[in-house]
Amino acid sequence: MRLVQFDFPYSGPFGEEMARAMEGLARSINEEPGFLWKIWTEDRASGRAGGIYAFTDDAAAQAYIAKHSARLAEFGITGIRALAFDVNETLSRINNMPG
Amino acid sequence: MRLVQFDFPYSGPFGEEMARAMEGLARSINEEPGFLWKIWTEDRASGRAGGIYAFTDDAAAQAYIAKHSARLAEFGITGIRALAFDVNETLSRINNMPG
Repeated sequence: MRLVQFDFPYSGPFGEEMARAMEGLARSINEEPGFLWKIWTEDRASGRAGGIYAFTDDAAAQAYIAKHSARLAEFGITGIRALAFDVNETLSRINNMPG
Repeated sequence: MRLVQFDFPYSGPFGEEMARAMEGLARSINEEPGFLWKIWTEDRASGRAGGIYAFTDDAAAQAYIAKHSARLAEFGITGIRALAFDVNETLSRINNMPG
């Protein structure tokens, strides 16, 4: 498994309005090669959003980082930060990792 | 629920060696007020590590950010990045959010 962390400046919409605006995008993400899950993150106070993703492997993670970074840039979003990580499963199991 | 994202430059240990070195810290994190879970992240190639945490509320998240940032600084770690987010549960459910 390879974890991907995205965050970027974001001015809204938030909450249920965001959910309505992004539902089609969310459904399309389920079809991405190697995609396992995404937690959608948002913070109105600091004006940021992003996501934590799990992919089956690094090739899938890197392909998604390239695709999603280009899509966000098309939306006019700058200051995008995307990182890929392994998960330390031994430590994460101690700390009740979900799933 | 409030999600916390930490990442910072990290030169090791990684993998099972990291798990042995950090087991006591992991167990102590389970005792933090409002703590729900942590996914431990590491990337040997880029020399980074961090974690994705869930807390019950923002007060618990902010208290942990302050405590853990100070602890990492004591370890000599600089370039620490810590962000707190809400989770968009409607979108995350579409994308198979674990837990």
